[in-house]
Amino acid sequence: MSLIVCKFGGTSVASPERIQKVAARLIAKKQEGHDVVAVVSAMGKTTDELVGLAAALNEKPPAREMDRLLSTGEQVSMALLAMALEAKGYRSMSFTGRQAGITTDKTHLKSKITGIAADRIMKAVNDGIIPVIAGFQGIDENDDITTLGRGGSDTTAVAVAWGLNADVCEIYSDVDGVYSADPRVCPRARKLDFISYDDMLELSSAGSGVLQSRAVEFARKYKVVIHSRSAFSDAEGTYVQEKAEDMEEAVVTGIAHDTSEVKITIRGVPDMSGVAAMVFSHLAGANVSVDMIIQNVAEDGRTDISFTCPKGDMAKAMETIGSIMPEIKARECIFDENIAKVSIVGTGMKSSPGVAARMFSTLGENEINILAISTSPIRISVIVRATEATHAVQCLHTAFDMDSDSVFVETALSAEEIAAKMQKGR
Amino acid sequence: MSLIVCKFGGTSVASPERIQKVAARLIAKKQEGHDVVAVVSAMGKTTDELVGLAAALNEKPPAREMDRLLSTGEQVSMALLAMALEAKGYRSMSFTGRQAGITTDKTHLKSKITGIAADRIMKAVNDGIIPVIAGFQGIDENDDITTLGRGGSDTTAVAVAWGLNADVCEIYSDVDGVYSADPRVCPRARKLDFISYDDMLELSSAGSGVLQSRAVEFARKYKVVIHSRSAFSDAEGTYVQEKAEDMEEAVVTGIAHDTSEVKITIRGVPDMSGVAAMVFSHLAGANVSVDMIIQNVAEDGRTDISFTCPKGDMAKAMETIGSIMPEIKARECIFDENIAKVSIVGTGMKSSPGVAARMFSTLGENEINILAISTSPIRISVIVRATEATHAVQCLHTAFDMDSDSVFVETALSAEEIAAKMQKGR
Repeated sequence: MSLIVCKFGGTSVASPERIQKVAARLIAKKQEGHDVVAVVSAMGKTTDELVGLAAALNEKPPAREMDRLLSTGEQVSMALLAMALEAKGYRSMSFTGRQAGITTDKTHLKSKITGIAADRIMKAVNDGIIPVIAGFQGIDENDDITTLGRGGSDTTAVAVAWGLNADVCEIYSDVDGVYSADPRVCPRARKLDFISYDDMLELSSAGSGVLQSRAVEFARKYKVVIHSRSAFSDAEGTYVQEKAEDMEEAVVTGIAHDTSEVKITIRGVPDMSGVAAMVFSHLAGANVSVDMIIQNVAEDGRTDISFTCPKGDMAKAMETIGSIMPEIKARECIFDENIAKVSIVGTGMKSSPGVAARMFSTLGENEINILAISTSPIRISVIVRATEATHAVQCLHTAFDMDSDSVFVETALSAEEIAAKMQKGR
Repeated sequence: MSLIVCKFGGTSVASPERIQKVAARLIAKKQEGHDVVAVVSAMGKTTDELVGLAAALNEKPPAREMDRLLSTGEQVSMALLAMALEAKGYRSMSFTGRQAGITTDKTHLKSKITGIAADRIMKAVNDGIIPVIAGFQGIDENDDITTLGRGGSDTTAVAVAWGLNADVCEIYSDVDGVYSADPRVCPRARKLDFISYDDMLELSSAGSGVLQSRAVEFARKYKVVIHSRSAFSDAEGTYVQEKAEDMEEAVVTGIAHDTSEVKITIRGVPDMSGVAAMVFSHLAGANVSVDMIIQNVAEDGRTDISFTCPKGDMAKAMETIGSIMPEIKARECIFDENIAKVSIVGTGMKSSPGVAARMFSTLGENEINILAISTSPIRISVIVRATEATHAVQCLHTAFDMDSDSVFVETALSAEEIAAKMQKGR
């Protein structure tokens, strides 16, 4: 008998019919003798609708109010799931983030979990109740509702699993697990049975939408085993865990791509110390999530500084840089939204020289232009034109011998469709 | 300079455009130098939609979960109104019932306010902030969200006004104030400038939809002045307050009608002591709000017991009676939904004999059949067929010399439309 935390995303609870299915799945586990705790996201398009309402009233809605608004989405789905479980004769109770003991810092819309006091949930479990917890939300020291930002519900689930000392944290979504690349883009992608925290973290940070990097980071830190699996089948998915002795060590574990970022370039910055520090400390102060940073070689004592950040942070980033333009004496600041980041990830890379060379030459042979490069010990990322992302992923997948014999059935998506899919949900 | 609590119902916050208008109204008051605190209901049809979702999952949703579900409606509107105020350059913060310090008992869906700790709201007011409070909700001693039932937001507003020692509690709705009868039913109804708590309470209890009786009761107990006025005009409405010396004392202040109740009759009950007590203590235990009780004269040692209750309580009531049928040895239990209660109300009644006689003879002359009668010192209610309610109100309004010279413009409604209007909202 295990204690299992099950997290269901917005698609899985999008309608009463789907909520019934989630309830049935939880009950099946309960009947197998397990204790279960559910964590839910908001129903389907709820968050988008709430964001739309806010936008109609305030171009820059105050973050505190936005959190209060958005947090209602999960409160609706949690109550509905609890009702569905009760209707099937199982005792259930829903809990807000606050009631589940999830405390966060005060950064509204992007809060970090600072603690979890799971006594009330544990008591419910011990009483035979199926607790249903609102994902994505917590409470700060002002007693105000906070939300955890993108991927917040995954993080809630992992935090709850840790707080309850659960055996596994199952994260249900509309994909079967973690693939060597997005199968909608690369039909020969393979499903992985296991992946290490390190590899998963790099893939998630690099834009693989299956699991959110913050959740994986939390899981790695506290050794919570994640099982990423499909909400629509009983097939086993992918276990994300500490690297096991017998885990197969490929040079490249997976390829991720990400079309959700924008590249911003500050042109004609005087090449003197302190400028970059000023730019990025101001961006950090404005809570812009800077990803890659590229500084070109100076010419005539002036240089260009480029960086990438989520498209959602673009307005804030441009405004921040605009405000310091006179001080940094830059010539202009431009942005490019039609880019994609393609990353290859693998712990095995550390002991295999020549991986970068193989990546660049593969892209070159396929006439894909590299706009920028960034690396970590177990990841190499390149920025390419958004229209070339699919081609880049496919040829790298082949070049690193990752192609499966079978072909994924869903037809490949256009760059726009991929971008749309990547923007969705929490 | 006054401190004013302003409550806006669901119709007033039904869309972003209407929320803008509410914000403009609050700002106008602020600019006049007043301190303002807003209390809001859920947007338009939100509650109905949430009830629909719950019904799709559970025929009898657990009350605790229902409260968590319904309370999200006000959390959405409060955040949106705060955003609208901020967009216009005014500082605003929204507060849930819990954060506004509203504590209640544990009766989910129909909680009673047990206390209000308004310090946090008062602090916000003193800081120049416009607080926006979610109506209809509170928190019980289990730290669980509760809702106050029908009219809950009015009650929240009055409680907050009391907690803040506000000068007046303005309740905005889609009507101009309190009329001598519903002007949609009785086009010659007059708007009252003032009404005493006692008269208002009887009118509200008797079904006048303008103000909820619980709110009036609270206001009477704690001497909170209510100003019932239109959300769509600046005209003064009706002040509900302690009876002033110079208040005009009519014999009948107003006429109310109510089509939201059902009449349930238990037939063939043995005429012995204790039976009525058993019936009504069981109904009370099941939280059925019994209104009028009529026991007919016994015949052959058996009698009929009838009572009225809200249509929403009918299922519970029939179930409760069903469960004690064998014990009370009743023959059958039937219900009649096509009834209306028509009440005349007036503190002046106490000192004017013959009011009841005039009421009954007026109805008799108009061939309106009286199905049941109940009285209080300042109210006489009769049950008539629902189809005769409009006629009854009109002829009583004329008989008691209440007709105004002007005629209300909105066309009279059918009995069904009136019933629909009376069912709506909180």
